[in-house]
Amino acid sequence: MATDPRAQPASPAAAHPHGFPTGDAIARTGSSAIRDLLEITEQPGVLSLAGGLPSPEGFPVAAFERASAAVLGISATGALQYGTTEGHRPLREWVAGRYGSTPDGVVVTHGSQQALDLLARATTRAGDPVVLADPGYIGAIQAFRAAGADLVGVPADHDGLRVDVLEDRLADGLRPTLVYVVANFDNPSGATLGEDRRRRLADLADRYGFLVVEDDPYGQLRWRGEAPTALRSLTDRCLSLGTVSKVLSPGLRVGWAVGPPPVVRSMVVLKQAADLHTSSLTQHLVHHVLTEPGFLDDHLAGLRTRYRAQAEALVAALRDVLGDAFAFAFAQPDGGMFVWGDVSSADGAPVDTAALLPVAVARGMAFVPGTAFSVSEPHRSAMRLSFATGTPAELAEGVARLAAALADVATADIAAGQVSANPR
Amino acid sequence: MATDPRAQPASPAAAHPHGFPTGDAIARTGSSAIRDLLEITEQPGVLSLAGGLPSPEGFPVAAFERASAAVLGISATGALQYGTTEGHRPLREWVAGRYGSTPDGVVVTHGSQQALDLLARATTRAGDPVVLADPGYIGAIQAFRAAGADLVGVPADHDGLRVDVLEDRLADGLRPTLVYVVANFDNPSGATLGEDRRRRLADLADRYGFLVVEDDPYGQLRWRGEAPTALRSLTDRCLSLGTVSKVLSPGLRVGWAVGPPPVVRSMVVLKQAADLHTSSLTQHLVHHVLTEPGFLDDHLAGLRTRYRAQAEALVAALRDVLGDAFAFAFAQPDGGMFVWGDVSSADGAPVDTAALLPVAVARGMAFVPGTAFSVSEPHRSAMRLSFATGTPAELAEGVARLAAALADVATADIAAGQVSANPR
Repeated sequence: MATDPRAQPASPAAAHPHGFPTGDAIARTGSSAIRDLLEITEQPGVLSLAGGLPSPEGFPVAAFERASAAVLGISATGALQYGTTEGHRPLREWVAGRYGSTPDGVVVTHGSQQALDLLARATTRAGDPVVLADPGYIGAIQAFRAAGADLVGVPADHDGLRVDVLEDRLADGLRPTLVYVVANFDNPSGATLGEDRRRRLADLADRYGFLVVEDDPYGQLRWRGEAPTALRSLTDRCLSLGTVSKVLSPGLRVGWAVGPPPVVRSMVVLKQAADLHTSSLTQHLVHHVLTEPGFLDDHLAGLRTRYRAQAEALVAALRDVLGDAFAFAFAQPDGGMFVWGDVSSADGAPVDTAALLPVAVARGMAFVPGTAFSVSEPHRSAMRLSFATGTPAELAEGVARLAAALADVATADIAAGQVSANPR
Repeated sequence: MATDPRAQPASPAAAHPHGFPTGDAIARTGSSAIRDLLEITEQPGVLSLAGGLPSPEGFPVAAFERASAAVLGISATGALQYGTTEGHRPLREWVAGRYGSTPDGVVVTHGSQQALDLLARATTRAGDPVVLADPGYIGAIQAFRAAGADLVGVPADHDGLRVDVLEDRLADGLRPTLVYVVANFDNPSGATLGEDRRRRLADLADRYGFLVVEDDPYGQLRWRGEAPTALRSLTDRCLSLGTVSKVLSPGLRVGWAVGPPPVVRSMVVLKQAADLHTSSLTQHLVHHVLTEPGFLDDHLAGLRTRYRAQAEALVAALRDVLGDAFAFAFAQPDGGMFVWGDVSSADGAPVDTAALLPVAVARGMAFVPGTAFSVSEPHRSAMRLSFATGTPAELAEGVARLAAALADVATADIAAGQVSANPR
């Protein structure tokens, strides 16, 4: 509430070195290591397997051209005028239909990163514990840190979050406001949360009263196997996040959250202060493309074929090109965009991937070192490789350059007598 | 930073009535009175002079069609792919050129409401005093309240913020982090901050070390008189907010902040967690439309002609139709979208506009009562009327219905023996 003006002992700005005031949120957000990293990796001539950029070859440009002609030709006023904070009603209805919800339970956001930010601020007070997998999704780590959450990392393996470890911590008294999972083809680990773990996690949500946040940008990029049951159909205490970023275009920034109406309403109230509403034009375009008869299924089939070929090229190169000198322990992907694993030399000594990165960039390739995804464990010998952006030939060449960088580091270590040996 | 899991005495969610966790920001944001109000006023058959919606007749649909064909035809990959958090480089360069800045001092935001939200979170800690005019812009009030600011209202008159009153409060010890002004054709007051006050405000910013935030969505809609000097050219401690909402389209959600690089960088760091970046497609479209040879100046001239005719129709109706029975004290607009004033009966008794609103809606028109813009003063007898959306005939009819509603209220008051008499 407003209050009367009152005396302050000193200018709040004067305390800050650059002479401008600084808020709580910025103090919490800290340095932007990943931004600095991407500046290094996105240099000309560097084959980057670091970014999570969808292949531009997969963008449905013709469908957007048809949508744009239809939207600006028929409903320009709606597409160019202010809209409601909840989102474009036909798009909310389409989402509600897909998720077995009602439009009341849907808010359209400016990409799913905004859904994370609104969710964090809508649910989390400074110091509240929030659980996520360790390694964790950087966007979620940033949004929850900015909201002041106390991040609690729970280890994950090839079946995703170790729900048994979470259960032990709950039994020990941990009371998180929410548990965040990238349920299918996790970023960075690539893992899909197993069916049994999903059921157990849903039971724990009901028993302990936390919210399960099921982020699923990659689920439609599955080319092998059956998808496990969606968490939202296992518990009412679930909020699902979706996006068109990985299936249509990330540059449009259209995503959504679907969940309990009280939580969605809180997000809507904050969204009004955050940006009034998501772009009417992009919502109209996305709705047109998603509902164009016969388009979406064909388009998704094409994307799966493309990403499968790229994934197989990467996996083959990792197996064949890295050779016997190094081991890269990873799981074969059935979908998504990422391969994640620990790198070690043939004798089992872990490789410090953060130290490897500049050597790799000098060799003309880039990856993201595991430390970038750290919640509490360092993941020093891990790396994330994306197969989303490169052609099969580029991916193979990228791995060849990675092998050369690993050989450089091994030589240097031996020369300097410092074989990297971290405790993991 | 991440910490180890730790025991909590009870579930944070359990304390909340709906059983889901609630964050600090949502607790501060409180009820959404303006949202409820707009639901009342946007009923079928109601001539709404309440909303600040630009006239859809002024949307440059053909220019967006040309932009869309060019962008999707030539640079679809850039328009559909992830972009940088700072914004589309050519658009930042265009903005920097207009504002006499450099691209380093520009961040493109998802509308200027997002700039307010990022700015509030980047600069303001819970309890920090923030100064704005009273009555104040609702979007700014919401963003600063959500960030936990201690809002300090300073009165305004027909020359805008009473900088002399601010100076007295600073002398008494007030130390705000920032002073927010809608410099031209303020929302809601319609006032433009006078030249002398601008110079004095800039001096105070330099002397006391606060940031001046110059929000200017309406400055290009001036059809009479000369614009005063921009605050940004009077002090380096100024952050300017701009938007295409009132000149091209509000539905695109493209705005920007231009100011000291340390503040802009903080906003960029928060924006990365908030939504990664503003839609690449809408930024490409806006840049194309803004730089199309010969387009913008012609378009702005057309908008000014349109709004001037609408403003004059509203002013004439207020003078002619309200008649002798009521007085509406307002200043003749030279631009912008709004008329603001105090309503009283012929004998000088102030009218309670919040009580008047349902009567007006029953008569088929709507306005926004002054209380909606309250920082600390109630503004009980004030109202905001927008001339942006209606045709001259609709605006005249709206005022006729307002006169009928005022007559209804006067009759009812006399019947009940309750002439509204509030202390302002």
